[in-house]
Amino acid sequence: VAELGFDAEAAEKGGFEHFMLKEIHEQPDALRNAIRGRLDFNLGSSVLSGMGSSARDLAEIQRVVMVGCGTSLHAGLVGEYAFEDLADVHAEVQQAAEFRYRNPLITRSDLVVAISQSGETADTLAAVREANQKGAFVMGLCNVVGSTISRETGRGVYLHAGPEISVASTKAFTCQVAVLLMMALKLGRGRRFSREEGTRLAREIERLPELVEKVVTQSARIADIAKRYADHEHTFFIGRGYLYPVALEGALKLKEISYIHAEGYHAAELKHGPIALLVEGTPVIALANDIPGKDKTLGNVEECRARGARILGVITEGDHEAAEFMDDVIEIPACHPLVSTIPTAVALQLLSYHIARHRGCEIDQPRNLAKSVTVE
Amino acid sequence: VAELGFDAEAAEKGGFEHFMLKEIHEQPDALRNAIRGRLDFNLGSSVLSGMGSSARDLAEIQRVVMVGCGTSLHAGLVGEYAFEDLADVHAEVQQAAEFRYRNPLITRSDLVVAISQSGETADTLAAVREANQKGAFVMGLCNVVGSTISRETGRGVYLHAGPEISVASTKAFTCQVAVLLMMALKLGRGRRFSREEGTRLAREIERLPELVEKVVTQSARIADIAKRYADHEHTFFIGRGYLYPVALEGALKLKEISYIHAEGYHAAELKHGPIALLVEGTPVIALANDIPGKDKTLGNVEECRARGARILGVITEGDHEAAEFMDDVIEIPACHPLVSTIPTAVALQLLSYHIARHRGCEIDQPRNLAKSVTVE
Repeated sequence: VAELGFDAEAAEKGGFEHFMLKEIHEQPDALRNAIRGRLDFNLGSSVLSGMGSSARDLAEIQRVVMVGCGTSLHAGLVGEYAFEDLADVHAEVQQAAEFRYRNPLITRSDLVVAISQSGETADTLAAVREANQKGAFVMGLCNVVGSTISRETGRGVYLHAGPEISVASTKAFTCQVAVLLMMALKLGRGRRFSREEGTRLAREIERLPELVEKVVTQSARIADIAKRYADHEHTFFIGRGYLYPVALEGALKLKEISYIHAEGYHAAELKHGPIALLVEGTPVIALANDIPGKDKTLGNVEECRARGARILGVITEGDHEAAEFMDDVIEIPACHPLVSTIPTAVALQLLSYHIARHRGCEIDQPRNLAKSVTVE
Repeated sequence: VAELGFDAEAAEKGGFEHFMLKEIHEQPDALRNAIRGRLDFNLGSSVLSGMGSSARDLAEIQRVVMVGCGTSLHAGLVGEYAFEDLADVHAEVQQAAEFRYRNPLITRSDLVVAISQSGETADTLAAVREANQKGAFVMGLCNVVGSTISRETGRGVYLHAGPEISVASTKAFTCQVAVLLMMALKLGRGRRFSREEGTRLAREIERLPELVEKVVTQSARIADIAKRYADHEHTFFIGRGYLYPVALEGALKLKEISYIHAEGYHAAELKHGPIALLVEGTPVIALANDIPGKDKTLGNVEECRARGARILGVITEGDHEAAEFMDDVIEIPACHPLVSTIPTAVALQLLSYHIARHRGCEIDQPRNLAKSVTVE
């Protein structure tokens, strides 16, 4: 009998109206657990013994391929930036069903990371088996200890996020991103990423619980803002660079629990088509944190405003210049651009939650959805 | 003065109500021009002298990176499958703005293909300049002869699709895909793709004008079907494998000209979130041609039907099994799976056109959109 380490009591709502809200609020602790003992400030690297590979093994990796579905896919997209930017290694994300049916181009120098909260997602499991056939390094990135994917990969990193009950994933997503950042840091340190840079990034990752706490405490303010965005059937989320995957995830979250047709778009793609849908009052959620590309995103915001869209900006605390472009703002504490994806995602989780609540939706059990998709 | 080779008269509507409809109908000819003289049935390969590279040069290519925006990005996604499947070479598509700002991992053994109908798209042009800095093989895939991208790349392949006036791209997309298939065929023949297979594919590419003609002649029938899908504000397009990018393009087309919030989804992703949005009567356009993955897509169609969605299936001519799953069908002649992306895209162009017409939209000049995005 496997010891799951999940306390039955921890699965209760603990005073929160919904599991989703409870799990959003648990994120500072979940991230603390995901990070604990895994950062080495002296070496400027991360300690992920579950990866089960020596530095010499890791040095052989020429490409990182992440596979997953839904929210896990979006975590992988943040990971793609992290691996490319920190480790100069080609990285890509593949929808797990696509991977399993495509006879993928995979070799023994590829690292395949299977991302699944439950560790039971059918398409992701099939992708793991296919990658194992090809002789790749295969690792799991799961939350549930002893799950099928974690067993079949043999190595990987657990999230330690605690049980996630809400169908809409929250803390699993942010912990997946945190672990991917630590994996990229480790791979990067085996290459050109210096000890000094590594230590700086590790210090920023260490701040995550505190950064997320500062977002979670804005819940009441975000609930107020949410009122103004709840009565629309269409909403666009835009971002670029590291924030593009966060825009996709923000839109998915809103879609899942509020049944608003929300769509995430690369900010630069907006004017190649979807801008045609903007009319007076259409909500646009613009991720305009102070990271590279912010000025371009603000330019896109201006184009949306010109068509009458109502803009909610997620911006860096104290960025008065960006605030000028927005109708409403949620402020995120200043931090490393890659790290900022996590508090930004938390702000969007709270926004979705409060919008769905204003609309009277059944938040923990959205219609037509299951927590884990264990059929094909 | 550059000779553009475009006849002023050819730019008139020629009896059609809109340029878009005219350009949809021009596709058999446009494809004939894009293909003419470019297939070698004896060698089972393609002749693309504009690529300006010897077989020895092409053999050095270890990765293909396609850059573009909007519709061109979707053409690139079909190209990604073609390069991987025919040439066993890693291929990926990057949004051009993302490429230019990311300090992309590009080396001299990468082939960068810049896809732009006008050859003037600002972000794509900037990506070309960045790829040139990195010493990659850089090629243009443009329609407008003498355009900035075609000049700055120095080599590449013209579409010869003729002038495209409608803001919503139609014939440029299908000719982009046709040319990418020929590029992948050429690269594949320099590797493991045999002469026999090459000849078979070349013969299928040769059929394109005739295949598309058979779709275009269904215009009146598609107009009838379109009536039943015109009065909805949300529509989902689903597909997998080669047809996934076509689902994205079909959704973009509908969005651009009908202002319906249409979204393209990988069929396997539907149940990881967006299925929550389906209610009685929500239109789902399912690309279920008889290609690998069809059975799985039919399974996803079944899930959508169970939630009351109305399903329009694009299927292979005579596939009675697939027809059983659908409320309405558009049939595409049987052909090579990669080649089938093109007639399928044409069916979706006609569908979008007729839906927009039923809704009384200004088809050739959709609100907020410009033909070429020459600013950032």
